[in-house]
Amino acid sequence: MTRVVGLRCRECGRRFPAALRSVCDSCWGPLEVEYDYNHISNLIDRDTITGRAPTMWRYFELLPIEDSTHTVDLGDGGTPLHHCQRLGKELGLKELYIKNDTMNPTSSFKDRPASVGVSKCLEFGITTVGCASTGNLAPAVAAHAAKAGLRCVVLVPHDIEASKIVQTSAYGAQVIRVKGTYDDANRLGILAAEHFGWGLANINVRSFYVEGSKTVAYETCEQLGWEPPDITIIPVASGGLLSATHRAFKELEELGWVDQRKTRLVGSQPRGCAPIVEAFRKGSEIEPVEEPKTIAKSLAIGSPASGYEALDAVKETGGSMDSPSDGETLEAIRLLGGVEGVFAEPAGAIPLATLMRLRDAGEVDASDRVVLFVTGSGFKAPETVLRVVEEPLVTEPTLDALRSVVQGG
Amino acid sequence: MTRVVGLRCRECGRRFPAALRSVCDSCWGPLEVEYDYNHISNLIDRDTITGRAPTMWRYFELLPIEDSTHTVDLGDGGTPLHHCQRLGKELGLKELYIKNDTMNPTSSFKDRPASVGVSKCLEFGITTVGCASTGNLAPAVAAHAAKAGLRCVVLVPHDIEASKIVQTSAYGAQVIRVKGTYDDANRLGILAAEHFGWGLANINVRSFYVEGSKTVAYETCEQLGWEPPDITIIPVASGGLLSATHRAFKELEELGWVDQRKTRLVGSQPRGCAPIVEAFRKGSEIEPVEEPKTIAKSLAIGSPASGYEALDAVKETGGSMDSPSDGETLEAIRLLGGVEGVFAEPAGAIPLATLMRLRDAGEVDASDRVVLFVTGSGFKAPETVLRVVEEPLVTEPTLDALRSVVQGG
Repeated sequence: MTRVVGLRCRECGRRFPAALRSVCDSCWGPLEVEYDYNHISNLIDRDTITGRAPTMWRYFELLPIEDSTHTVDLGDGGTPLHHCQRLGKELGLKELYIKNDTMNPTSSFKDRPASVGVSKCLEFGITTVGCASTGNLAPAVAAHAAKAGLRCVVLVPHDIEASKIVQTSAYGAQVIRVKGTYDDANRLGILAAEHFGWGLANINVRSFYVEGSKTVAYETCEQLGWEPPDITIIPVASGGLLSATHRAFKELEELGWVDQRKTRLVGSQPRGCAPIVEAFRKGSEIEPVEEPKTIAKSLAIGSPASGYEALDAVKETGGSMDSPSDGETLEAIRLLGGVEGVFAEPAGAIPLATLMRLRDAGEVDASDRVVLFVTGSGFKAPETVLRVVEEPLVTEPTLDALRSVVQGG
Repeated sequence: MTRVVGLRCRECGRRFPAALRSVCDSCWGPLEVEYDYNHISNLIDRDTITGRAPTMWRYFELLPIEDSTHTVDLGDGGTPLHHCQRLGKELGLKELYIKNDTMNPTSSFKDRPASVGVSKCLEFGITTVGCASTGNLAPAVAAHAAKAGLRCVVLVPHDIEASKIVQTSAYGAQVIRVKGTYDDANRLGILAAEHFGWGLANINVRSFYVEGSKTVAYETCEQLGWEPPDITIIPVASGGLLSATHRAFKELEELGWVDQRKTRLVGSQPRGCAPIVEAFRKGSEIEPVEEPKTIAKSLAIGSPASGYEALDAVKETGGSMDSPSDGETLEAIRLLGGVEGVFAEPAGAIPLATLMRLRDAGEVDASDRVVLFVTGSGFKAPETVLRVVEEPLVTEPTLDALRSVVQGG
């Protein structure tokens, strides 16, 4: 008896053992981990979970690691769900929450999938791990690799924020800037994983890695007393987080831990890189964006790996998709900081920008319970945050000088 | 019956009500909050604590807030205690732990005292809060002020890291650069608090504010199954964290939650600003350092407000003090990142630098249970961390180019 049955192709349904494998041999479709929920429900219930240490690893049985001694845990997840009373009031919402995933070990939600991905590599006996990254996954994989004592190599697009590189390098990883976009780095990663035998979290380890992102949704439901939100707004890059959220809600229903009441999933992409939003609006195929143009660098993925899963999740839950402008996202950064004390990067603020647009369009009721996933810290993009803050004042160190500087006392 | 008896002068013992008051009227000594531990032990025990939500506010009864509706909680504290197996092995220690306070809401331990300080201002009905800051306190106060809906003004020395200012400004605070050192900013704060009626966390709210720092020690003991460490190594700026840690251990003994076994407290200051260390070595008074020179900007306090309390704590516990060089601190940053996956600023890494020096001097046994307080994230000083990391490699997006860049595969 085992919790993890194997891998299953999302397109053709073909089954594979739970080994290192990027795509389906038959149809090149994406592979998903398949669990035995009957078995899992014999192992754990809601009370078991609540009694455990407050990290994402309290959901161990719903993650694809066989042996718990392989878990590489830096205190991932277990982040606060802030009840936003002030911001809710400003927006005319009774129940607004922020799932503050900036409070992860490397300051973004990517610690969740990275933790699972690196643990799985340890379980597979792989000695060099890594990823292709728009910026946030690289430090997350690097930190967990350091903790596990594994070598780490990361491929990043040439133009990512210096602050993200410093952090990754500080974890001892070998950072390689690839001349091109994220999609170029990703394509090179596919070749490199094959050639060097590396375990790249979001490439050949992807089926396992994405499972870690489910824990944001598990925790949100648990923190709401197992009453899921009416609307959950999620930043979308590859689509992995949105589709993992969808699977997580379905699993909790399957286990009978939450009611069948559906959460509407809303995906948010920046206007300058919104291939999934465009497909949603037009009812068309997803057409790659060749040159993403956005301040939300973490979302600058033109060819989203889980785009169709994300689209299906939105449609199946009666949700929607939206693409705010950079200006709207900057305003959201200002509100999150100034009203709720949460320091967000553009990708983390974009769900609030979308919420404001939905509210203006009358698509959100005052009574809706809304959760925003704030996925990354402002530290990830200080250059961008700088655009919304006021210049510091300067004073000589005397009270008279200070009084003339501080108008209105 | 009340938990908080009042304030008591540490020098002359005179008692005052628990009101806004900077120093003792009689002797200008520092004031400390006095509690009724008999009463507190009727309200809570170790099991009560363990059953609560995992933030520092689970220790509410040991903090100087009267009414729990005044607590301003961003999910402060509740940070991981990492068991450092790899680093412990490198250093020849069986039990080495990192209390990872980089994982606080604003990424430093200062969220703990700031959360208490801002809560107390709310309780006092003060509408403008703030602080003087070397960098980490400012964002912590600003974030909690935002959450509470209070105006925030912070005074910082002219030369602090830009990254710290961006973060503080992002929380909507008015940042004022004071031409001079931290001590100049602090002196100006004393005048401003009086003149404008501001509640400045580490100035006129200091007696209450410092109480928040006790929670690092409470949590450490709880996470070690109420078995205190043999040695705790703490970064020292004003001395507030070290003396709060001492009070916390004494309180846990008073409550009977831990054995009388004493933890040796070790304080660490950077060589270029080590007034307390110098006084410890010479057995002399603390002589202010006029011009601090160190990469650990968060520790650049030449006139430490709680210097004597810190000295007493070190002596009373049989501990010691040390002042590593900037080079040793940089090496500690590299080790924390590369071996344990913890991204630290210089102030957060200095305890590890001290541990390595103590080990080389034979002052630590292999069997000692050692805890390092890692107090602030590398995001607080990316410019400095940059000095220890390797340059990224650059490649064209082809496998051949990558192979020539990555030697040894």
